[in-house]
Amino acid sequence: MREVAVIGVGMTKWGELWEKSFRQIFVEAALNAIDDAGVDRVDSMYVGTMSSGIFVGQEHVGALLADYLGLAPIPATRVESACASGGAAVRQGFIEVASGTSEIVLVGGVEKMTDLSAGETTYALATAADQEYEVYHGITFPGLYALIARAHMEQFGTTREQMASVAVKNHFHGHMNPNAQYPFEVTKEAVLNSSKVADPLTLLDCSPITDGSAAIILCPVELAKKISKKPIVKIIGTAQATDTIALHSRKDLTWLKSTADAAEKAYKMAEKTPKDIQVAEIHDCFTIAEICVTEALGFFERGEGGKAAEEGRTTLCRGGTPVNTSGGLKSKGHPIGATGVAQVVEITQQLRGEAGERQETGARVGLTQNMGGTGASTVVHILETD
Amino acid sequence: MREVAVIGVGMTKWGELWEKSFRQIFVEAALNAIDDAGVDRVDSMYVGTMSSGIFVGQEHVGALLADYLGLAPIPATRVESACASGGAAVRQGFIEVASGTSEIVLVGGVEKMTDLSAGETTYALATAADQEYEVYHGITFPGLYALIARAHMEQFGTTREQMASVAVKNHFHGHMNPNAQYPFEVTKEAVLNSSKVADPLTLLDCSPITDGSAAIILCPVELAKKISKKPIVKIIGTAQATDTIALHSRKDLTWLKSTADAAEKAYKMAEKTPKDIQVAEIHDCFTIAEICVTEALGFFERGEGGKAAEEGRTTLCRGGTPVNTSGGLKSKGHPIGATGVAQVVEITQQLRGEAGERQETGARVGLTQNMGGTGASTVVHILETD
Repeated sequence: MREVAVIGVGMTKWGELWEKSFRQIFVEAALNAIDDAGVDRVDSMYVGTMSSGIFVGQEHVGALLADYLGLAPIPATRVESACASGGAAVRQGFIEVASGTSEIVLVGGVEKMTDLSAGETTYALATAADQEYEVYHGITFPGLYALIARAHMEQFGTTREQMASVAVKNHFHGHMNPNAQYPFEVTKEAVLNSSKVADPLTLLDCSPITDGSAAIILCPVELAKKISKKPIVKIIGTAQATDTIALHSRKDLTWLKSTADAAEKAYKMAEKTPKDIQVAEIHDCFTIAEICVTEALGFFERGEGGKAAEEGRTTLCRGGTPVNTSGGLKSKGHPIGATGVAQVVEITQQLRGEAGERQETGARVGLTQNMGGTGASTVVHILETD
Repeated sequence: MREVAVIGVGMTKWGELWEKSFRQIFVEAALNAIDDAGVDRVDSMYVGTMSSGIFVGQEHVGALLADYLGLAPIPATRVESACASGGAAVRQGFIEVASGTSEIVLVGGVEKMTDLSAGETTYALATAADQEYEVYHGITFPGLYALIARAHMEQFGTTREQMASVAVKNHFHGHMNPNAQYPFEVTKEAVLNSSKVADPLTLLDCSPITDGSAAIILCPVELAKKISKKPIVKIIGTAQATDTIALHSRKDLTWLKSTADAAEKAYKMAEKTPKDIQVAEIHDCFTIAEICVTEALGFFERGEGGKAAEEGRTTLCRGGTPVNTSGGLKSKGHPIGATGVAQVVEITQQLRGEAGERQETGARVGLTQNMGGTGASTVVHILETD
């Protein structure tokens, strides 16, 4: 297999984009990535989208978006793995380039979520859980993650303050990200006193509903060296894993096994350990998720994730491993299918030294972790620059 | 890239399966394929599904189905390209094996369509067209294909009788397929006199609404030679292409450019010409579609597809190139995401000499063509046995 580089990245401003359509926001992000890469053609395309059928009445999005980008007749395929759709699309793009099937591959992610009512949006999101055995009984994602939070508090003594510190940290990072949906800081008190969503989680423990898109351009490292004027960022590890779809089928509610499994394989492929990771974008759909993910990735011992966040060990430029320098899902927003692609955008910018105010000095190895549902699927990528 | 073989195939009986759930029919087909392959493990999985979100309120189907097959923690990814979702999933499976990423890959397709009302089902299917510029104005697929049919009649003198002969032929083939939804023969008069759906198309010009699943197991040819006791069926060509999503954007309504583009690449990769194809499964969502596809694949000159069908040149054991020996979408049924995978099941059985009453004697090279919408996406595969 060939070595694969990220040679272009693009985003749109995320938020409630009522004046723009699904196809428009995708095209905007994709053109930004193509411009950034400086390529004059694209050979193949993957799109990560979770539920465009329910959100905007549109399936067949690979063909639609290739058409509106002016890229037909190239192959264009939509990939879905709930909230990990973007990460899964990146992985398919990686395999396509690594295998020699295509030279220059566009991977985009997009979701347009705000065209529906709150109730309809909650229904659409719940399709990532087990419809017949979880959703049917009335539970949705805030409730499922609240169960995980309660179990983590019970097992490890994790506190509400520790969870709140994840939100505070991600808004601190996100307030320096011009593309973030909520680019402002919040206090611990604001998180703790915001309205209750599903006990113990409050509104500011939850990632928002977002319209947005992100895109990257992949090509073989050999080609990247010829055409790119920017530092070469390689994808040196990729892995994907599954777990039970229903939370109630797990032996331990607080252990994200699919993340641990994918991370183990990705570390092995990249010949890295958790200690080598200098910057990471991970799936903080709820504050408790970030805590569990940092443990499953091996950044911290089990039960230590909350304490580590509270101590600033995941904050930028504090000597630890900064997590979610983009603001994460919490502050940057979470347009489902776009999230996993945007994680690669942020890490690429960090490794290139292009992250502006959010730059982690000297970062050369980064990781992305994108997760579907309550962890029924996870995709992990490890990136490196020379 | 490594050579790839199909070592296992599985189906369910297709039809209105009200007593079975989405996950059940997938598991049934997948277990049949695993049994047929005789493998004791699966390393990775792809699922083709068009609109499970709308049809059964379930996205995240890769993880769901891996879980219910007992295959977690393997990577499992859902692939969507409207009615070409199954073909697109086969292509991702091919690339995964060819690249050396995985050894034994399960590719399944599934759709559960009959849980919705007719109106809701029509809405779900219309998400394969351009929601904003076609569907919004009230047209759905029978109307779009009726436009293609009228244009074909106008340009080439194609007759209603010729279209009807496609339905007659596919039901003749399908009446020998125990898994078909409508395994019975129909007369030309029955087709012509069935109720009008969208002029000139009548009910028996249209493929039905179907619940069903199909699955195949892929592995490297070298491994297949060691573990399989059946004739080795190789995938020697794969290609995918796109065209404008909206029919009104095309220069010529009757020319399926994405099919012609994908076929050209697949023939080149396989080092075959249309004349080498001895049996083909193609996308007859409407009778006129089969006529246009046989022209775009180069089986017949432009405008000759209707005449060729009427003359029996696409009928089993008549010395031509039999098309849709399974009964096609028309008689076997069309559970959207399953269709492209089931095409590979049929061709594999034909090349193995396992097609029973439907066997085309001595077939060694076969082709599948799976198409999304009115041809905005197409996936073509060419298979061969020694």
